[in-house]
Amino acid sequence: MDVIAYMSEVGQKAREAATQIVKASTHDKNQALLATAEFIDQSRQLLVEANQQDLENGRANGLDAALLDRLELTQSRIDTMIEGLNQVAALPDPVGVITDMAYRPSGIQVGKMRVPLGVIGIIYESRPNVTVEAASLCLKSGNATVLRGGSEALHSNQAIARCIALGLEKAGLPADAVQVINTTDRAAVGQLITMPEYVDVIVPRGGKGLIERISREAKVPVIKHLDGICHVYVDQHADLDKALNVADNAKTHRYGTCNTMETLLVHSAVASTFLPQFAARMAEKQVELRGCGQTQAIISSAAASEEDWSTEYLGPVLSVKIVSDLDEAVRHINQYGSHHTDAILTENYTLARRFLNEVDSSSVMVNASTRFADGFEYGLGAEIGISTDKLHARGPVGLEGLTSQKYVVFGDGHIRQ
Amino acid sequence: MDVIAYMSEVGQKAREAATQIVKASTHDKNQALLATAEFIDQSRQLLVEANQQDLENGRANGLDAALLDRLELTQSRIDTMIEGLNQVAALPDPVGVITDMAYRPSGIQVGKMRVPLGVIGIIYESRPNVTVEAASLCLKSGNATVLRGGSEALHSNQAIARCIALGLEKAGLPADAVQVINTTDRAAVGQLITMPEYVDVIVPRGGKGLIERISREAKVPVIKHLDGICHVYVDQHADLDKALNVADNAKTHRYGTCNTMETLLVHSAVASTFLPQFAARMAEKQVELRGCGQTQAIISSAAASEEDWSTEYLGPVLSVKIVSDLDEAVRHINQYGSHHTDAILTENYTLARRFLNEVDSSSVMVNASTRFADGFEYGLGAEIGISTDKLHARGPVGLEGLTSQKYVVFGDGHIRQ
Repeated sequence: MDVIAYMSEVGQKAREAATQIVKASTHDKNQALLATAEFIDQSRQLLVEANQQDLENGRANGLDAALLDRLELTQSRIDTMIEGLNQVAALPDPVGVITDMAYRPSGIQVGKMRVPLGVIGIIYESRPNVTVEAASLCLKSGNATVLRGGSEALHSNQAIARCIALGLEKAGLPADAVQVINTTDRAAVGQLITMPEYVDVIVPRGGKGLIERISREAKVPVIKHLDGICHVYVDQHADLDKALNVADNAKTHRYGTCNTMETLLVHSAVASTFLPQFAARMAEKQVELRGCGQTQAIISSAAASEEDWSTEYLGPVLSVKIVSDLDEAVRHINQYGSHHTDAILTENYTLARRFLNEVDSSSVMVNASTRFADGFEYGLGAEIGISTDKLHARGPVGLEGLTSQKYVVFGDGHIRQ
Repeated sequence: MDVIAYMSEVGQKAREAATQIVKASTHDKNQALLATAEFIDQSRQLLVEANQQDLENGRANGLDAALLDRLELTQSRIDTMIEGLNQVAALPDPVGVITDMAYRPSGIQVGKMRVPLGVIGIIYESRPNVTVEAASLCLKSGNATVLRGGSEALHSNQAIARCIALGLEKAGLPADAVQVINTTDRAAVGQLITMPEYVDVIVPRGGKGLIERISREAKVPVIKHLDGICHVYVDQHADLDKALNVADNAKTHRYGTCNTMETLLVHSAVASTFLPQFAARMAEKQVELRGCGQTQAIISSAAASEEDWSTEYLGPVLSVKIVSDLDEAVRHINQYGSHHTDAILTENYTLARRFLNEVDSSSVMVNASTRFADGFEYGLGAEIGISTDKLHARGPVGLEGLTSQKYVVFGDGHIRQ
């Protein structure tokens, strides 16, 4: 198979489909989403069979248990896909929304209309349900999509792709609006990220290695985050009960998510009160603590190395550092963090405001768990990912992040003087 | 001089200054702008002398008259720089503006705060007044700036840079917040656009060749437009009096600007009425017309070649094409245009809406001159440039386009369930 020719053809078809999908009515897009949900429901048997094939190949190729688990399409995961499609259908359509329409002194009326980006390339790893999640958000926001899933999920993804194609066709929309790459050749990824003539933006979902490689090699903008090294800073003016619950939740609610706390910072004035209570909680939940020298003088913990401060553990490990003031906390966060999500626990008005202003992260919080950094929790309805970049979309990226704006101007024969 | 070491030092200083300028109060930033205006006013003699040196060098190096004209700092251009500084000081500060703050079902309160991008690199050609314009917008939006002007304006730019540095110092802000590169070595540009660790975004201002080269080689996002191939489409339902005035204005108000009409599209049903009147106006103003075959059958004009449809003349030349309907007009614009600014002249509601929706340009207009596509006319207060890209900023880019947003979350000890 000539991958370059194949990807060019996929790109051309996507670009062509984008010119149709940009004009699709809200009704037709929703119909496509709801019909896809029905086809998935009717195809449970086919989906599970395709998935079984992937699981067997995975076992034969020695995939580890965690990967096999992520790869599996259980009935409940199929339910979740169907539910997700119904939810995205229920979200407001961002396309065509006009805001800020106002008259100017010249007499023209100027506003901004929200428009799709065009063609979005999604590159992701083993979870086949991402196929539906990503495709539905891109479709609702009026974009054509090219999806490249993990090679280990090829059969599952193709089976899901057929349901989406049927859903699009039932709604009278071009099936090419959602294309799932049907080759496991890795050169396909290299092509996808270097075709600015066909692809407007890439959204990679997966491990840091994948995302770093894509960011480095892409000739197309990439909406992404690499790490989630999130901090909770317990200030000297914190309500220590709140602090205990929030820090506990930020670390232990889920270990493997990007908005999980990886480093706890504690003001020296409250460390000897707070840390022993917190350490007891962590001991109950078998979370390993790695502390700075001052921390080790208060609670028993392993020594944190320089590397710990910039490590995303994604597991039951937490680094702990005592700081002398807000300045030191902010400096530490901006230096070692990943600009994802950071929270201060404080009852002090001025310090709370300073933390919000000075921490350079996509989400900054006062007295709330970092685990709230999420498209659903923020009211975006859904999210395609989280961006720690500053340009275009930052923080959880929902339908709006998959769109752009254009200026619209109404006149009555107005000319510039 | 070791350009790589020099640029690294400039980048480091900019990054450090950015951490200060992000926190600067509106008052201090405005003071810096107003003080710069005063220092420029007091330094007229020095500025003119420095500029004389550039002009002499330019003449000795055989610069053409147009370039020498753009290079010259007349008293009236100095007045304009001072006026510009005062205007930017009077604009609202975008930094720290919080919008969409709302309670979520979990009880947290979520909103978005506008924040600076960080360090902005500006690359521009001969006009020294760009130094002040660009620096003032970046400063007001809380960014540090590295400016690389044309080598022919080196002395003028350095003299202006001294005024800005004095203004920053007078306001107690770091002088490194605005740095003007003091070498004419072209390697400096290559460095500036490939230091993502120090520079967050590049804004190039100048000819298409410069911008293409920068976009191709940059390892940093670039806010830009390449061409301004703007269209006016006179629909069959146009009010031909309005159409005549708007098309005339779009072409002849100024020839050299990016929002000037370069191609006129006319519906076949009104071509024989409209074109002779329009051609008479253009003849008065000595605008050369290059028409399609159908156009040549109605008015006397040179033949337009395929290349004409994608040419930005930037002068008194206009290509003219007769189309059979809106679909053909939209197809032509999306294929040959530069996604900058396009206008329809029509009294028909449905066709106006279709044009706004289907033309994929950063500004789309009904019954108004393309010349309105401009930051001042749109109410942005000022503009650093116009973007035809879809990601981040699109259309005229003002202070807001030089900022990003971060999510702010207020809780009262909220944890995720």
